Amino acid sequence: MPEFKSVRGMRDLLVEETKQLNFIIEKARETAKSYAYGEVTTPIVESNELLCAKTSDEIRNRMFTFKDLGDRTVSLRPEFTASIARLVSNVLKKSPRPIRVLSVGSVYRYDEPQRGRYREFWQSNFELIGSNKPEADAELILLTNNFLNKIGLKNHFFKVGHMGILKGVLNQEGIIEKTQTKILQLMDKKEYAKAFDLIDDNSRSVLESLVKITGKNVFDTIEKIKNQLDGYEKAKNAADNLKNILELVAESDSQLKSIDPVFSRGLEYYTGLIFEVQIPEFDISLGGGGRYDQLIELFGGLSTPAVGVAHGIDRLNIALQIQGIHADDQNIKKVFVIPVTTDLRIRALEISEKLRNSGIFVEFEVMGRKVGKALQYANKINMDYVVLVGESELKTGSVALRDLAKHEQITIKIENLAKKIRE
Amino acid sequence: MPEFKSVRGMRDLLVEETKQLNFIIEKARETAKSYAYGEVTTPIVESNELLCAKTSDEIRNRMFTFKDLGDRTVSLRPEFTASIARLVSNVLKKSPRPIRVLSVGSVYRYDEPQRGRYREFWQSNFELIGSNKPEADAELILLTNNFLNKIGLKNHFFKVGHMGILKGVLNQEGIIEKTQTKILQLMDKKEYAKAFDLIDDNSRSVLESLVKITGKNVFDTIEKIKNQLDGYEKAKNAADNLKNILELVAESDSQLKSIDPVFSRGLEYYTGLIFEVQIPEFDISLGGGGRYDQLIELFGGLSTPAVGVAHGIDRLNIALQIQGIHADDQNIKKVFVIPVTTDLRIRALEISEKLRNSGIFVEFEVMGRKVGKALQYANKINMDYVVLVGESELKTGSVALRDLAKHEQITIKIENLAKKIRE
Repeated sequence: MPEFKSVRGMRDLLVEETKQLNFIIEKARETAKSYAYGEVTTPIVESNELLCAKTSDEIRNRMFTFKDLGDRTVSLRPEFTASIARLVSNVLKKSPRPIRVLSVGSVYRYDEPQRGRYREFWQSNFELIGSNKPEADAELILLTNNFLNKIGLKNHFFKVGHMGILKGVLNQEGIIEKTQTKILQLMDKKEYAKAFDLIDDNSRSVLESLVKITGKNVFDTIEKIKNQLDGYEKAKNAADNLKNILELVAESDSQLKSIDPVFSRGLEYYTGLIFEVQIPEFDISLGGGGRYDQLIELFGGLSTPAVGVAHGIDRLNIALQIQGIHADDQNIKKVFVIPVTTDLRIRALEISEKLRNSGIFVEFEVMGRKVGKALQYANKINMDYVVLVGESELKTGSVALRDLAKHEQITIKIENLAKKIRE
Repeated sequence: MPEFKSVRGMRDLLVEETKQLNFIIEKARETAKSYAYGEVTTPIVESNELLCAKTSDEIRNRMFTFKDLGDRTVSLRPEFTASIARLVSNVLKKSPRPIRVLSVGSVYRYDEPQRGRYREFWQSNFELIGSNKPEADAELILLTNNFLNKIGLKNHFFKVGHMGILKGVLNQEGIIEKTQTKILQLMDKKEYAKAFDLIDDNSRSVLESLVKITGKNVFDTIEKIKNQLDGYEKAKNAADNLKNILELVAESDSQLKSIDPVFSRGLEYYTGLIFEVQIPEFDISLGGGGRYDQLIELFGGLSTPAVGVAHGIDRLNIALQIQGIHADDQNIKKVFVIPVTTDLRIRALEISEKLRNSGIFVEFEVMGRKVGKALQYANKINMDYVVLVGESELKTGSVALRDLAKHEQITIKIENLAKKIRE
């Protein structure tokens, strides 16, 4: 029989990695609780039609798509927003607005595997649906900041932009949507020359001037952007909207390091604010989001403004590793229980169950090893204590308790055992 | 645009359902901690070859199988054990024995949807690998019992059997494995007549007598089983092994209500103990497992004894609902923050962030509603408090705090707000 391997691009997370993954997910849930987001669970398998309705070709072409046994064309979700839009336009149609939801789980994209890029990866995804106000946009940035603080990340900063700036210019210049998408993608990749080839001189000069803008802080940058947008009313309004959002964030948060007027993001559905978060030591986005006011409508719902953010949990994990930060290990005492002879197994198991019910981590000797070998093993796997259940001690309702760090052994009444270990 | 629906057999779990799901998963993790199981995460997408290597046709024919973009035939995992066997025979090959692992997540089977049966469902899966001793078998029953106690389930009981009893008889009668599998499946469905048609009179009389056995308790039943197995040495040894396991469990646990000598389970890989757990009010297994001593070897590893159990989290959820048990709602105070005028949004957001950092659940008014409308909404969504951030109170560093249950409103210094709310 051949040795089986995991499928290319799919990973096994062993104990320590799973602990980190769960730690980050738990912090996302804590964040959701403090910002009033309710967690929902949508399926990993969705109709291909839903997932393709409004995404970029880039993602569409990298989905895991197949026919189920009922001949339905389905895909593994490459992100959460389409599923949430489906929920909001169906079962949550009549819920009072705003709707705040968290989704956590794995998503699937057929990417070339590399560090921070996997075919199965985890996201926490927050969406705030029903408000078109800047305080809604600000909330998504604030909660992202709060979440990253909770997991212990340091020096993270936000890159911020607004789809309405470039789109406002391109719309006014009469450039069709398909070309706009291409231009935005090229500019996001900083392939400006190629992008400018697609437009005439007039638009070109505006975009060129936007690309060159730098400012000493975000508000200075926004003023400079606005100065370049004379005559482009909608683009200017977009810049004002961005300013309003950032004013709401700036007081509570000082990590708005960069604003990029020509920044856009992979997904086609953004209509307003867009943002990403990073750390200086790792040149890859740890999370990002923005406003998508037309998406719910596209999924058959009423016209509904919405803003959302997705955090890359695997990437956050890498970021924590880079910064040398580990999930707090709960200081739970680890005990190894050994029956001295085979016929004492029942008594030893009873004692183990009692300890477990007192919240103690108990590994029971199930290999039938003699005491010496079992002790060696307990040392090897870094147990704190060994409980030896032997006949002579049991006669007085006691067991032997060995402290492996201190190399001390005492005889102790069974009823005092849990208390002593937890001390 | 049509209204999008979820794919048939796939469910959306809304906020309350997700809370229950997470509650049960958290208890599985607590159980893992007290029994020294480390959690690992394996991919949902595995090679079809791995998943088909040792499962029943019943499961094989109901897998979601497809080709990925790299032309690999892959499937969505229908259970966890194949992935764990892969881990143990590869990356964990050299880990000290025993290996104790927990897996939690969704699995996929193309079943006809009905109550307690979904195409995407959740399991917690515990495996203890490397020990052939009865205390290992006993541990899986004990931890299942402990887990169900932790989630608050009442009156659950175990149905217990041993593959070695029937297999011992059938092997000795020279019946080939393929026919054995068929016989076991038929007997499990209580289609005894059809099963007996496949064997000669000699085996038939033994099996008939086993089917009829009832006892006043498990040990009485085992004695009666042994009395029918004269001359079938291996089958008798299996009954003795079952007796040893149950002796280890019986002292700690009184919920071993039934033992069934002809009980078998859907998966073909079991070799020894098999068990399922149920409640009286719901005629469907909530979890089950057993010993599978030849499986790791089949996956290319060394011959390794192993025992495991999978719990159906969705079914446990239904069982809790039937018994009227709900996840403890953490008694977290819910606060709704309203800026009285638009220009006070920044100050109101700052106050919200402070409250959140004190562990309070804060929903911020993002709809731009006037105070009256916003208060109505806060009442509707069952907030505990409303914080009104208004200009006159801010002048003295204060805000208005309204207790929605008591219909009382006080003016309070911002620095005392969190303490007051948490009282």
